[in-house]
Amino acid sequence: MPIVADNHSGIEKSVPMIPSTLKVNSNRMLAHFEELSMIGATALGGVARPALSNEDLRARTWLVERLEGYGFELRDDAVGNIGGILRSTTPQAKTLLVGSHLDTTLNGGKYDGSIGIIAGLECMLTVREAGIALPFHLEVIDFTDEEGSWQSLFGSMGLTGRLSDEHINDSKQDNAAFRAALLRLGLYASEVREARRDPTTLRGYLELHIEQGDLLDRTRTQIGIVTRVIGRSNFRVTFQGEAVHAATNCSRKRDALQGATCFMTKVYNLPTQCVGGMVNCGNVDVQPGITTIVPATATVHMEVRHPDPDQLAMMEQLVHDTAEQCAGAHGLSVQVRRTLHREVAHMDERLMQVVAEVCEQQQLSYTHMFSNAGHDAQIMAGFTPSALIFIPCKDGISMNPKEYTDWENVENGANVLLHTILRLAMD
Amino acid sequence: MPIVADNHSGIEKSVPMIPSTLKVNSNRMLAHFEELSMIGATALGGVARPALSNEDLRARTWLVERLEGYGFELRDDAVGNIGGILRSTTPQAKTLLVGSHLDTTLNGGKYDGSIGIIAGLECMLTVREAGIALPFHLEVIDFTDEEGSWQSLFGSMGLTGRLSDEHINDSKQDNAAFRAALLRLGLYASEVREARRDPTTLRGYLELHIEQGDLLDRTRTQIGIVTRVIGRSNFRVTFQGEAVHAATNCSRKRDALQGATCFMTKVYNLPTQCVGGMVNCGNVDVQPGITTIVPATATVHMEVRHPDPDQLAMMEQLVHDTAEQCAGAHGLSVQVRRTLHREVAHMDERLMQVVAEVCEQQQLSYTHMFSNAGHDAQIMAGFTPSALIFIPCKDGISMNPKEYTDWENVENGANVLLHTILRLAMD
Repeated sequence: MPIVADNHSGIEKSVPMIPSTLKVNSNRMLAHFEELSMIGATALGGVARPALSNEDLRARTWLVERLEGYGFELRDDAVGNIGGILRSTTPQAKTLLVGSHLDTTLNGGKYDGSIGIIAGLECMLTVREAGIALPFHLEVIDFTDEEGSWQSLFGSMGLTGRLSDEHINDSKQDNAAFRAALLRLGLYASEVREARRDPTTLRGYLELHIEQGDLLDRTRTQIGIVTRVIGRSNFRVTFQGEAVHAATNCSRKRDALQGATCFMTKVYNLPTQCVGGMVNCGNVDVQPGITTIVPATATVHMEVRHPDPDQLAMMEQLVHDTAEQCAGAHGLSVQVRRTLHREVAHMDERLMQVVAEVCEQQQLSYTHMFSNAGHDAQIMAGFTPSALIFIPCKDGISMNPKEYTDWENVENGANVLLHTILRLAMD
Repeated sequence: MPIVADNHSGIEKSVPMIPSTLKVNSNRMLAHFEELSMIGATALGGVARPALSNEDLRARTWLVERLEGYGFELRDDAVGNIGGILRSTTPQAKTLLVGSHLDTTLNGGKYDGSIGIIAGLECMLTVREAGIALPFHLEVIDFTDEEGSWQSLFGSMGLTGRLSDEHINDSKQDNAAFRAALLRLGLYASEVREARRDPTTLRGYLELHIEQGDLLDRTRTQIGIVTRVIGRSNFRVTFQGEAVHAATNCSRKRDALQGATCFMTKVYNLPTQCVGGMVNCGNVDVQPGITTIVPATATVHMEVRHPDPDQLAMMEQLVHDTAEQCAGAHGLSVQVRRTLHREVAHMDERLMQVVAEVCEQQQLSYTHMFSNAGHDAQIMAGFTPSALIFIPCKDGISMNPKEYTDWENVENGANVLLHTILRLAMD
């Protein structure tokens, strides 16, 4: 039975007595947010804290200093995740994780990831100040490289025991540099798998995040309760032709970039075939890349997303078919390599219900929705009951210095997080 | 009046007595060709001698050693062109230049450029051995960086006085590296303009080259007499959108790569609108280039070619119009920058007539044709009467290790060059 220790008398009270009016300290949370936003701040008003960069290290240092300063117990792991723990009075209690990530993309915003950490820290402070004794340890956690500067969702993959040699040896940048960057944190590539935790020691995982879409903003809804994180597959599609002089007769040309152009034109239309699907072509690498030479190879780096596993599989098939069609039409060969696959991840039903009850109690409008973006919660979901709570994101713009949400939204989100924790304490 | 010095008696004879059966020494020419082909030879059977690279320097050294070894007078200039001169007995005579280039693209073939030098050298040796005294100095010339590893047609631009600061400060690679590469040859960027020669001292310019198209090969024609080198304009077309998360709602996306894809799809069809025109998109530079981020900018590096100046102008206009259309259709802005413009270049009528007469005399089939590829001859044409003589190129493939022509074609070309020189001596 969860209990509440009265701050003054030391008398324990049952959790149902916690008033729904308990709120996080918004000013303190804002002060933390503003401090954190300064680390890696860009001239355009955004934030650049790629994982394992100097800026990321400064942000980690900042978090550790705050956690220590507030007297929380620190926890490190072999994959670089940083935890700060508010211990339950029950030593053998399970741990409820609350987190997100401090790292950003190269030209990211202030909110993506950061508010999940800032709000988690604030919940720990508020719970402790309210003298509430939880039946679980509460741990705020910063996951390493969520954004994938090196390997996306690296920290949560490590914690859930999903890392393999492939993840260490297929970094988005140079693998040796990845190892060196890990070493700088005192982490050994050969040991990252040791970060795996025992799921029976965990109570669950909660993550607060901006939506990165415009559903909440457009419909003026305050809270989004994520039912599932949509699946995603990344592809590297390489068309192979022949490098010849640009003035070569058309009938003799086997132009790899014409194949890639054909492919991109068609895949941009895939979402109309697979309603609810999404496509992005993020890069094209052309060789030899000389204006007067017909391209010999053109590699399209692209991804497809869909909330339905069957439809996602159909999109994958269409990527393959389209690549073959376009290669055939231009006399090229083509290689389609799936470089990443994230299955559709379902959030925990009971946790969704608790969050919905909290929204009603807090008189906040809410909706159930998909997450189109990837999050550590999707990795955690297969490991421990997980919830992903969204707040609005202005115009749906993120990974951009323009990324913005009203502070009131962060406040609402943090209070939903707080009361979700408190309700779980009563479960 | 041109004269012939009898090799044995020293008695001068008039040129008309030179037998049409005089031929170049094919074996010696082949030996030179094979020596040169070894320099920068690639595993795939091609040649990599980018201008000012170690391999280019070795090829230059090889040429200088041969010229010196055969006792020809050397001539350097401020832009790195290398000349070897067979002096006329008339000191105040003009100079007939015969040349091409030793540099190649990064993964080029053995013939492009090289055979023009090899055949020119062979003509000088054959003329001297035949005891023929020419009424002009005969100079074989290797032009610097025809292929444009740094700045295309750099050597001929220098010789004709067309270099400006723009050419030094807008290198295809790093400008400082360009200066350093020139310095290694003892050349100063500030002095390259001094390479300009006085056109009144020149008799003309002859260039033998593989076609780099398949007209001669396909029609089994032995010699192509180029009437004009088609005009070319290079463009850098930059679409500007916004970097946001790939899962952003479609209506909020301003995807620069979608603009570029639209643009490429349309410009690939330009040649059907402008019959005889050619289009090549050689590279696409996408920023930030991350699979999960919608591209903020996409820059297409492309070129258009046309033998007719008005049609070329129309193609240029269509490039601009298409860029604007595609930008508009995708909510992007676009900047179109013309980075290079080569006007249509007309070869000299009289020289074309002489070459045609030589072909008939030598009983070689020939045709008049355009050159779709750029050559030093197009720069020389505006400066001194110039001729550009083509031999077949197997399947029209060039700038590729597969680049090939039967040795017999090189022999034919060299003999046409030889007898063109001899006929000009009678003019």
